[in-house]
Amino acid sequence: MSGAPLRVAVLGAGTVGREVVCALLERTAELRPSDGVALVLTGVAVRDVARAVERGLPAELLTDAPAHLVAGDEADVIVELMGGDEPAHTLIAAALSMGKSVVTANKHVIAHHGPDLEAIARRNGAALRFEAAVGGGIPVLGPLATDLAGNRIERVRGIVNGTTNYILSAMTDDEAPQDYATALAEAQRLGYAEADPSGDVEGHDAVNKIVILARLAFDRWLDPGTIPTRPASVSGSAGPGITTVSLADERDARAEGRIVRLLASASRDGATDVRASVLPTALPFDSPLGRTSGVRNRIEVDGTPVGRVAFDGPGAGGAATSSAVLGDLIAIARGGGSTWGPRPAATGPSVAPAEARQGSYLETASGVRYPIDD
Amino acid sequence: MSGAPLRVAVLGAGTVGREVVCALLERTAELRPSDGVALVLTGVAVRDVARAVERGLPAELLTDAPAHLVAGDEADVIVELMGGDEPAHTLIAAALSMGKSVVTANKHVIAHHGPDLEAIARRNGAALRFEAAVGGGIPVLGPLATDLAGNRIERVRGIVNGTTNYILSAMTDDEAPQDYATALAEAQRLGYAEADPSGDVEGHDAVNKIVILARLAFDRWLDPGTIPTRPASVSGSAGPGITTVSLADERDARAEGRIVRLLASASRDGATDVRASVLPTALPFDSPLGRTSGVRNRIEVDGTPVGRVAFDGPGAGGAATSSAVLGDLIAIARGGGSTWGPRPAATGPSVAPAEARQGSYLETASGVRYPIDD
Repeated sequence: MSGAPLRVAVLGAGTVGREVVCALLERTAELRPSDGVALVLTGVAVRDVARAVERGLPAELLTDAPAHLVAGDEADVIVELMGGDEPAHTLIAAALSMGKSVVTANKHVIAHHGPDLEAIARRNGAALRFEAAVGGGIPVLGPLATDLAGNRIERVRGIVNGTTNYILSAMTDDEAPQDYATALAEAQRLGYAEADPSGDVEGHDAVNKIVILARLAFDRWLDPGTIPTRPASVSGSAGPGITTVSLADERDARAEGRIVRLLASASRDGATDVRASVLPTALPFDSPLGRTSGVRNRIEVDGTPVGRVAFDGPGAGGAATSSAVLGDLIAIARGGGSTWGPRPAATGPSVAPAEARQGSYLETASGVRYPIDD
Repeated sequence: MSGAPLRVAVLGAGTVGREVVCALLERTAELRPSDGVALVLTGVAVRDVARAVERGLPAELLTDAPAHLVAGDEADVIVELMGGDEPAHTLIAAALSMGKSVVTANKHVIAHHGPDLEAIARRNGAALRFEAAVGGGIPVLGPLATDLAGNRIERVRGIVNGTTNYILSAMTDDEAPQDYATALAEAQRLGYAEADPSGDVEGHDAVNKIVILARLAFDRWLDPGTIPTRPASVSGSAGPGITTVSLADERDARAEGRIVRLLASASRDGATDVRASVLPTALPFDSPLGRTSGVRNRIEVDGTPVGRVAFDGPGAGGAATSSAVLGDLIAIARGGGSTWGPRPAATGPSVAPAEARQGSYLETASGVRYPIDD
């Protein structure tokens, strides 16, 4: 297939951005779909141009004005890899408003502004793709929306945050279990956790991901602020996410053949409702989710007629995540649409009733009631 | 999106065909992609019309002449679910020659006639989709060809045959291990193995699947007849596939922390070659592949930059497999192309040099040398 190449501007040259930029520069022929047009990099927005040049990025492509790349006429598709809320949100919305397609790894923006961005993309016939927002390089959003399109999805759940899973894995290591503070410090040393770890350990990152998964499974944008992240406890003192999971709690769980992991889950509830939660959960020790350790992710999808299918792999990292961004770019070069594919326009934002509050739980000696999930 | 509905004819109403026919009749609205046309069932070819009517299929759709459905002008897409070589192969080729798209679950036909069928499909601008041919309902071919299109795939391997994995799981059951003959008889009783089990236990089914996976990973159609299925042995008496795996062999493997499973594998070898094999393989007992038990399948893909991603789920069964067929139909209703998506036209058929012959192996007391794979 011939046609003018697709001109790509990348906003942000952090760990993922650098990988994407290098791939576009060095693997141009390989990345060209046989049934689509070529991809050509026409601009890269960075915070500090001089430093980017030092790091080997081509000076003629660089700018410190991402809004100019979005508004100018030298790019057909915008790859947003800056992260965070603003200016990423406004830049994505502006690009879609101009009819430019957008690829992003920004789970925060998609989860918090999904309803608006979907409406803008649909109104302007622009593709919005965000495979990299969940599970890093693991193909999961595309398969859920397209390959599994013949199913009624009943539930999607998984271990979707590598930082917390690394910490909990260190706390449940057979040989030398570390306590929470030590494991967190080690995760920070290895670059698996940020200096301010709250986005991961309090569950916000996993909340964003379950909102995105739920949109593709149930055609509903949930309001991330309504998804519970704090387990029930007798004293009411359990913290959000994994912040108060203790070695003693993990030992109590192990005595019951279970292991506590941060599980993000969303399931259909009757004809119209969706329940969702991000809670430290007592999983069977001897199960695929219970055995998912370290920074790997695993997402399980229950649907009819398919039954249960699962996707696992590296949930983070610049190289792995760049695979998802490149896959989205190739899809756009083939004329493919948005990540939601054949699914109907979503409603929302809507409140997500807590999942498993009515369900059974494992109460540890500390009085925390970890929901049980098999 | 509006447009004339896509008229679908289904050839074969066995376990998968019945599920597809019922879904098309009962879930018409649900299966219509929001960005494509509706699917409407216009014909079903069965062997025995009277029996199909008794089973509740609508008489006005039935025929015992599949060639008429293919040649007639009442179907835009042909769903081939008869299985076996002929007449399935000729019917698929005829449909593609007429420019009609084809969805099939027929791994034998795709693996053995892939080069021809791909050429016919490309020449006539017809889509050929076969997600159901590998891994039942697990989305793996689509993700490999499209979501992972930004990668250079290094290897694809997996447990892709539920029958042999059920038998080997029964032979390695902790509580009451069964010998090969007992486990095979039980698999036959449960419908997991056919009366003539040779296609599964000798590895032919897994060979077909690795040929299809290799085409999508490496753009090469391997000749299935050249893929080794017989492990080396001191006496030269090891049979093909799992036919001579014994309880003693499994015990010997366990003593080394391993478990013997039928592993299908294909990997890149230098710039142009692909090595492939379907061999009973000594896997780490405590690994995701080693723990894949019963009739479940698991396929692992190693690529750059993604690293290792994996897909698991039910590898067979009418309901699960119908999910893949329906997904392919929805893709065609959206104007999607063939399963190979953005990948270049494949070469072949080509000889597949044996994999792992040079590698390390675990030699059991019986003298069989099971290749080791971590």
